Amino acid sequence: MWADLAPLGRHPESGGYRRYAWTGADAECRAWFRAEAESRGLAVETDRNGNQWAWLGDPAAGDAVVTGSHLDSVPDGGAFDGPLGVVSAFAALDELRDRGAEFARPFGIVNFGDEEGARFGLACVGSRLAAGQLTREAAYELRDADGISLPEAMEAAGYDPSAIGADPERLGRIGAFVELHVEQGRALDLSGDAVGIASAIWPHGRWRFDFRGEANHAGTTRLVDRRDPMPTYAETVLAARREAELAGAVATFGKVAVEPNGVNAIPSLVRGWLDSRAPDQAALDTVVAAVERAARERAERDGVELAVVRESFTPVIEFGHALRDELDKLLGGAVPVLGTGAGHDAGILSGTVPTAMLFVRNPTGVSHSPAEHAREDDCVAGVRALADVLEGMACR
Amino acid sequence: MWADLAPLGRHPESGGYRRYAWTGADAECRAWFRAEAESRGLAVETDRNGNQWAWLGDPAAGDAVVTGSHLDSVPDGGAFDGPLGVVSAFAALDELRDRGAEFARPFGIVNFGDEEGARFGLACVGSRLAAGQLTREAAYELRDADGISLPEAMEAAGYDPSAIGADPERLGRIGAFVELHVEQGRALDLSGDAVGIASAIWPHGRWRFDFRGEANHAGTTRLVDRRDPMPTYAETVLAARREAELAGAVATFGKVAVEPNGVNAIPSLVRGWLDSRAPDQAALDTVVAAVERAARERAERDGVELAVVRESFTPVIEFGHALRDELDKLLGGAVPVLGTGAGHDAGILSGTVPTAMLFVRNPTGVSHSPAEHAREDDCVAGVRALADVLEGMACR
Repeated sequence: MWADLAPLGRHPESGGYRRYAWTGADAECRAWFRAEAESRGLAVETDRNGNQWAWLGDPAAGDAVVTGSHLDSVPDGGAFDGPLGVVSAFAALDELRDRGAEFARPFGIVNFGDEEGARFGLACVGSRLAAGQLTREAAYELRDADGISLPEAMEAAGYDPSAIGADPERLGRIGAFVELHVEQGRALDLSGDAVGIASAIWPHGRWRFDFRGEANHAGTTRLVDRRDPMPTYAETVLAARREAELAGAVATFGKVAVEPNGVNAIPSLVRGWLDSRAPDQAALDTVVAAVERAARERAERDGVELAVVRESFTPVIEFGHALRDELDKLLGGAVPVLGTGAGHDAGILSGTVPTAMLFVRNPTGVSHSPAEHAREDDCVAGVRALADVLEGMACR
Repeated sequence: MWADLAPLGRHPESGGYRRYAWTGADAECRAWFRAEAESRGLAVETDRNGNQWAWLGDPAAGDAVVTGSHLDSVPDGGAFDGPLGVVSAFAALDELRDRGAEFARPFGIVNFGDEEGARFGLACVGSRLAAGQLTREAAYELRDADGISLPEAMEAAGYDPSAIGADPERLGRIGAFVELHVEQGRALDLSGDAVGIASAIWPHGRWRFDFRGEANHAGTTRLVDRRDPMPTYAETVLAARREAELAGAVATFGKVAVEPNGVNAIPSLVRGWLDSRAPDQAALDTVVAAVERAARERAERDGVELAVVRESFTPVIEFGHALRDELDKLLGGAVPVLGTGAGHDAGILSGTVPTAMLFVRNPTGVSHSPAEHAREDDCVAGVRALADVLEGMACR
């Protein structure tokens, strides 16, 4: 199963994955999903928001148990973030069949579209649309770096974008959703466990900082005559690191766009994206406010204009205790419970559907990188835990 | 003449020019040059390095007087940097014909290729190759952002790259080269003069700073576990500004490339280009050494690897006093003499050919920007000054 998936969307030089929404690589991953599902006798459908579902039993009967994750990636992402949850879902089904288990509830495996937001800048687009957390109108405004809008991209990929939007009927058929995911930190590595259960997802958001100065000649413009937005940006990057340290949060400038981006031209625009997350809302507010304050002070000194736009935001998400406790019981009660700074489709769905997450140990904590790794025995332990949970919940 | 040139390679949104070497916009500018030259009865040839020459009289007779500049641009550059020197050359020829002047020496107008280095990262490629300051081998190594090499780009544009390299025979026919250029600072504006003569070009260079860290998830990687090259880059940008201020120099980070450049990914690589120039070599050395020291100190703290590569360097260029004094005499002795931080083809040629430069006032000092401007009466004064100089040097 891995062998077929591994080469899709892989960049020959970086070794990382570039599986962006509605691209050729995305289509290949979707074809892989369909083939795996159909070979197991599951009925595949793609919903109005581009999420793929594979069903055993009739979902219209309601109270379905669903597992799965996503197949898209960040730029040069790793092999596990997303795909591990989908591969493990099929593997857990195989394991349950080996055990001779029979399903008493409809069972589904899902591949959510555009979880990483690598192309349009907003994460979890597929699940957000379905859950009504992203409106059709707002989704139509999303554009990629080449100016292609989300509906244009869907259409180019052969999908009808006219019906995207909240899908309460479909989500209402789900009695429980369990997402398995590789851990993206080192908590399980530090505790010595192969598998854990999620407690909460930290509140997090993305803010775009547009620093506008004046393009000019780098050789002949006196320093006092400059309105150079690059030092303003630099000061803001350092403030983000400092404020995150003080607040016990994380803050990252991982994406930058510069205009005109010439070696001998003072930039007219430096655009930087701040990603920040914290254990609670107050800490996050403190970090973002302090970073913006530092940026504005420096902007004034540099003669630079600053606009800050919050591009996305997700408040703290506590997974429901009932389902968490059920998982804990089904796994024998010896499984650690941990929070995470990463967003997931499970977090989006948790407002609508009873939702839980399983994490598989990441020995280095490295993720969103070609070096992302999970040990094979840990992956097997993850499949077994997922099978245990599904068997307990869905089988007679 | 301006009306035909103005729309070529102009970006509809920024209003700036994107005339990069060996692109379609470059070909259009070359066609414009040929048409202007041929309409005046000049014989056009393109040399083995892609520089265009328009001749009146037989250059093989030697001791030619040549004027001109370049037509390519930085990303979103202005209308004057380069083109003013070429347009003024044709206009000065028209003026001399109106005066009834007759040439006693061969007269040439030149359009040097790839002066700005916007595509391949090295400035003055056409004149450097001709003057033997860039070897054929080194030129073959130049690549643009898409990985296309310089010879591939030349070939795609319909030129033969096999013969590029030093062209001493051609340059040996030139008795004097005078380049007219819009000033890229505010010295003439501050002194209240329409036209000035260049004394020297500051030493300047470009250094590429490669900061290598480790790509990782921006939400789940603890700050202490990070090897994030972005704060290292930021500290280096601030050091460059600080050290340039202390040394009376200029230093600019105007171009950045980030990998993978995702909002929720800690970068694996931040690549920044430092452009620095100073009145003398000692000041420049001080700035660059101090910036590199600050970068290395921070890199150690951040767990980041740093490689610094000097991509280009031009020592201080003093234009020869004999030709400078001749220009001064021909212009009536009341013209200010000024240094500049900008590199020019005239600077490259000055090691091989007697060379001088005229500057035309820039009322804001803004250059390398769509807002670059020169007043019409100053441009007319520039043409008249260039005609005076050419008449005194080349006509009977």
